[in-house]
Parts: sequence; structure tokens; C-alpha cells
Amino acid sequence: MNPSTKPLPDEPAATQRAAPPEGARAGLGQALRQLIGQRTDAIDTPALVIDLDAMERNLTRMAEFTRKHGVRLRPHAKMHKSAALARLQMQAGAVGVCVQKTAEAEALAAGGVTDIYISNEVIALPKLRRVAALAQALAARQGRLAIAVDSLDGVARLAEAMAGSAAVIDVFVEIDVGQGRCGVVPGEAALVLAQAIGRHAPLRFAGLQAYHGRAQHLRTVQQRREAIAIAVDDVTYTRRLIEAAGIPVDLVTGAGTGTFVLEAASGVYGELQAGSFLFMDADYAKNERDAAQPQFEHALFVKTQVISVGADHAVCDAGHKSHAIDSGLPLVHALEPGYELTYLNGGDEHGVLRAAGANDRLPELGRMLWLIPGHCDPTVNLHDHLIGVRGGLLHGTVERIIRVDARGALT
Amino acid sequence: MNPSTKPLPDEPAATQRAAPPEGARAGLGQALRQLIGQRTDAIDTPALVIDLDAMERNLTRMAEFTRKHGVRLRPHAKMHKSAALARLQMQAGAVGVCVQKTAEAEALAAGGVTDIYISNEVIALPKLRRVAALAQALAARQGRLAIAVDSLDGVARLAEAMAGSAAVIDVFVEIDVGQGRCGVVPGEAALVLAQAIGRHAPLRFAGLQAYHGRAQHLRTVQQRREAIAIAVDDVTYTRRLIEAAGIPVDLVTGAGTGTFVLEAASGVYGELQAGSFLFMDADYAKNERDAAQPQFEHALFVKTQVISVGADHAVCDAGHKSHAIDSGLPLVHALEPGYELTYLNGGDEHGVLRAAGANDRLPELGRMLWLIPGHCDPTVNLHDHLIGVRGGLLHGTVERIIRVDARGALT
Repeated sequence: MNPSTKPLPDEPAATQRAAPPEGARAGLGQALRQLIGQRTDAIDTPALVIDLDAMERNLTRMAEFTRKHGVRLRPHAKMHKSAALARLQMQAGAVGVCVQKTAEAEALAAGGVTDIYISNEVIALPKLRRVAALAQALAARQGRLAIAVDSLDGVARLAEAMAGSAAVIDVFVEIDVGQGRCGVVPGEAALVLAQAIGRHAPLRFAGLQAYHGRAQHLRTVQQRREAIAIAVDDVTYTRRLIEAAGIPVDLVTGAGTGTFVLEAASGVYGELQAGSFLFMDADYAKNERDAAQPQFEHALFVKTQVISVGADHAVCDAGHKSHAIDSGLPLVHALEPGYELTYLNGGDEHGVLRAAGANDRLPELGRMLWLIPGHCDPTVNLHDHLIGVRGGLLHGTVERIIRVDARGALT
Repeated sequence: MNPSTKPLPDEPAATQRAAPPEGARAGLGQALRQLIGQRTDAIDTPALVIDLDAMERNLTRMAEFTRKHGVRLRPHAKMHKSAALARLQMQAGAVGVCVQKTAEAEALAAGGVTDIYISNEVIALPKLRRVAALAQALAARQGRLAIAVDSLDGVARLAEAMAGSAAVIDVFVEIDVGQGRCGVVPGEAALVLAQAIGRHAPLRFAGLQAYHGRAQHLRTVQQRREAIAIAVDDVTYTRRLIEAAGIPVDLVTGAGTGTFVLEAASGVYGELQAGSFLFMDADYAKNERDAAQPQFEHALFVKTQVISVGADHAVCDAGHKSHAIDSGLPLVHALEPGYELTYLNGGDEHGVLRAAGANDRLPELGRMLWLIPGHCDPTVNLHDHLIGVRGGLLHGTVERIIRVDARGALT
């Protein structure tokens, strides 16, 4: 360690450090527990609130869809990052969950989830050793871990980390079906990787990862059909090539909330990874709905309060530290006529509200409002807890507090 | 509490819940502590890293500036949310810190910070009771709490929460000097609030809050001068009006990293609230620099790793769950010639990298890169810890881990 020429001040000694004042964040757990059974009025703002009735209807509709179409559901838990919700989804029929990060897998495993697929590439050896340890831990619990690869180096590193492991890890070869991000070009390159995987005993070639992220947000049904038709062709061609080399392709996994009806109907995708359907968001609501798709409801809301009122605008206490704006600003959930509001970006901690039409009024100081976030995944990642409400946002009661176990699990 | 018709599954019983696997997030603290003294190579990705040398130069330059200009510095701790950094700033001469949220104030107070200004409106009575409790706790530690108001209702509610308090809270009247968010119209409305504050013994009218957030990001010096000239006129007019009514205006507080040289030179602002100067970000770097402004350096970086390489792009493991993109995408910190890269949005967990020029190469798989985030404040809020590095990003060592005490402190 380099000697520090300008040492930064140390933490104050225990004797110097005052006890946290009442209401300090250390006590948040208790304050949250005390919310249970109370009316939604009691929820401090800003807060992330789940309409449990709407969420459960979304869960049921998706379970019915996958049952009817004979496809497996492995919802993406990168969206809710909650072990409790992952277990709920598995009780409703999901075979397991996807995650994007090793640390997400660890957090969900610690919360009792035993079938986890890291649908992403992991390259750093220290991380791959954590992957190997988790594969063993899950195998010991009759569960399993899977991971994606898109390079020979990736296979070699994974094999190095798994060397000598009693557990086997399922390995999916990722192909780029139009997303332009990770994944090899469909065809020969995928075969080469499948063959490489087969040369390492603790690695099992499990099939193809073929997710088209961009297609999820194409607005018209026709655009999405065209995009997924190409993906299906890519998958079919690659699968045949690998099978022609004598290697079975047990499963093709992919799809998101915007397109899963198309992958389900394709006959080549055996597993759907949609995650957002559980909560929905303002961005997905902009998609023209495919008639074949179940009707999902908004179940995720930011409760916020008006803290300032001007002549032609009001200001609420939820800005983009409360909800992610990468996919657009939140919508104000209209709760009564005459109060239609438009949310404008007010920075990290504020939203600026304007009356949507000439006949709409501004809300009064102190009024509570509900926002529909633009994008559910990164919004949830800003919060430690989801507050689950039963019986509606306005007149319901808080039923449970759901911990966001993998909040900030980046590595 | 409503009976639940469809109860969600309970947490697994203790006997069902397996011990967290090795490397689980519960052990993050230890893993981070083990980093201290190691080379930067050992930092797992993605991670938020502080170049301590650059940060301390920024700290020193700002301290010199405020000393020379005879203005107080009360940096905005909403940026770093760290009690350790707040105490460091106060050791370098800051009179205290600003925050935007009651929960931020509580978290910093718990970490030993005793002079805190909530430069924002608080309206909910339960929150105002926490404000009152904190005012008492800080007064007992020879510190003080201040808060902003912009409505008579706000004054009345604050007075209700503070009723009977032995402590006095400093109250600033916020005027809107061009931001278009909170604050009353400059002039008469501010006088009315100052008079209302004076009618409540535990409330002390402390002066004017006059922050022009939008002006911070006007790109040319001329644009910023014009905006702050109007703000200074607004402040001067309002101050005279209040003083003419026999109420002293002890302090005008405001300014950010983009404009503070102008407020400092105005003769009416006595306190600067700039916060971002400590870390800087890609957005502030786009401003044409005022010759009077100290030269600040980038001190905040996201360390990331290349996890996939395609024919014409590479993919790194830092997306917008690692850094906020509300003010634009991050820049790739160029560490050697021939590797200039452009960062494109790859979603929540990925960045897509393209060679910036025809002569630039793509980075190889596994390569570590450093990003300069677009906006420091919400980026820090995505992380639990800042990793402080001494001796440069490439060849330095980890000196300390700085906790983001108020990460997610939204209420």
C-alpha cells in the first residue's frame, strides 16, 4: 500500500460517534414493519409500491399463457431482484429465474432460490470462481446453475474455474439475433463453442441463448414480428448446424415481455425469459398490444407527495433518484377526473407537474400522487424495499414488505 | 388489515434457508476490506472508484477559492452522500453541508456530521417530526439544522412539528431565481414568509435560498453570466424588501459547480452550495470554463471489464445500473493512444463500445476500462461504497473504502 501523503480523516471513534437520531435509517426496518396493516396514506414518500392484486393477476395470466403454449417460463429476476418474488413465480410454475450478474445469483440463492441462470457472459476469473462455488452450493441443494458464453476464452476460463468441481454447470451459447450486444454470429461460431464446451466434464452444453432486447420496444406488432422472424431463422439455422454435428440442442431460451408471444409460437424457443410483465411500466405500455398477448396491468408505482405549488406548476418529491428515466419519464396515474397531470423532469429529487389540459387543475400542497415509472428494472434497483398493497392504491392496506435482495448487486 | 385472499408465500423457515454461499453479498464488507492495500487490478467490476489524489486537489482548489473570495462553502452532500466525505470537507473549511432529504440528513448525522441544511421543502408532518427530532439531536451536539420553505402551509406545519422544542431551526425562504421548480416568486411573497417564520419561537428566519439549477449546465460563460445576473437582481430586490420591513437577511445561500464563481463575485451570496466539483462528471466537463473558476479534475470513475468482443464492437459490464445516464452517457477514459472508444447505451447491465476513430482498435476480451459518468450525484446513489485509490487508476493502490451512508435515502 502506498503511504498516504494526505491521509483522509478516520471514521470518528465509537465514543465520538453520537447515537443515530430517532428515525435514522438504521431503524428503517422497524418503521417499515410497522406499516404492515396500515392504510396506504401511512406510506412515507417517495416509496416504491406494488399493487399486489394487479401483480398476481399478471402472474396468473402469464402462467396460463405458458401452460397453454407448452413453453417453460424462466422470468428475468434482474427486474425485481427479490428472492421472495422469484419463489412466488416458481410456485406459479416458473422453472427458475434468470439473472444478469453473479452477485444477483448469489443474493437470490441466499434467499432460497435454487434454479438460476446467469444469462450473460462472465469473464473475470475471481467472479468465475464465485460462479463455480455457487454451482456447487446449488447442486448440494438439488438445484442448478446455468450460464451463457460467447467466446472460446470464456469457455476456457469457466472450465478453469470449474476444474475439479463435483457439480456440473449448464452452459448456453449466446447468439446475436439482432440485439447487437453480446453473442456470436449465428451459425458456425456457435457450433465451435458447443464443441469446446463438450470437452470439459463439469460443463454441459445446454442449448442456445437467443434474446433480442431491442425488439421488445419496437412499437408496432408488425415491427416486432419482423424482428423475431429473423431471430427464429437464426436460431433454427444454428440449431440444425449444431445438431448436424451430433450435438443435441436441448433448449433455446430467450424472449422478453414485448415479444414472448412470438417466440412461444415459433416452435423453436422452449423457454421464455420475460420479466417486466409482472410489474409493467410506462415504456412497455407504449407498445401496440399483440392480440395473442395477455393483458398485463401496471402493478409498480412510485408514491410521491406535492411539496411546492407555483402559479402554473406543482413540484413533487420524486425525481430520478426515485425512478429510472432511461426509457422515458414516469406517467402520473390519474386517480380522478380534472387532475390529469404531465410529469416533467425536475432533477434528482423533484418532479415538475403541469396540468395536462386546459380543464385540469394543479394538485394542492401535500397531495399524494402515484407515478408509473418509465422502466421497471432500474427503478426497482433504486429501492431497498417494495411495499406491497392489497385492495388498491387509494383505499388499500399494506400487506407485506418485499426486500430487494439484489439491489445494487452489480458484480 | 385486509385478509389476503391469495396469500403470497412466506419467507422460507430458517431451517429451509441454506447458508449464503461463499461470496454472497452478506460478505461484501469483508471482501471490500481485503481490497485495501491491493493494486487497482484487484477491484472487481463494475465498481465506483475515486481517484483520491484528484479529489483532494479539487477540495484544496475550492477551499482556496472560497477563502480568497470571503464566501462560506456548504457543499451539497446529496452528491456523495457520505459522512466521511462531509467531515473531510468541513475539515477543509466548509461550514457544514446541504442535503435534499430528511433521510439524508439523518444518515449524515448518524455519521458524525453536525451542521446540516435541508435545502428543500418538507411538507409531510411525520417527516417534519423527524426534522424536529434531528434539530434537537444536533443542537444537543452543539450543531444545527436548517431547512427551506416556500409556502405559508410549509411554515405552519414546520412550526407545528417544532412546537415546544428546546432547539431552534434555521429557516431559509426559497425564491425561484430561474430554475422553475420550488421557491416563491422573488419579492413580496418572500417577505410574507419571513414574517410568518418570525411568529414562531423555535423557527429563526436565516435568509434566502436562491439556487439556479438550470444555469449550472448552460454551456457558455456568457449564458451563465446572464442567468446569474438575473438571479442576483432577484436576490437583491427581495433582500432589500425584507430588510426594509425591519427583518435582517443574514445570509443568501445557493450556487452550484457551474456558476459559483458568479455568485461568489456578486456580493450578495454569502454561501456557496456547489457539490459536484469534488468528483466532477462528463456533463460538467462540457461547460466552457470560466477563467475565474478553479480547474477541477475528474475524480469519479466506473471501473468496468470487457466481457464480449464482436467484429465491430465490444461490450463492457457497466450499464445504467452502474452509472446514471440522465445527463448523458459516460465517456471512456482514454488510457493509451490507439484505444479511443465511444460508449453507447447497452441497457441496464451493458455498455457497447465502438472504436472512436479509424485508427483506434477495439479492446480485447477481459480488458479493464474506466468510465467517466455523465452525472455524479445519481451515479453515486447506485453504489454502497466508493473505492478510494491513491497513486492513479492504473498503477495505484486501494487506500480506503468510503461508505455511501445515505445511498437510497429518499424520504
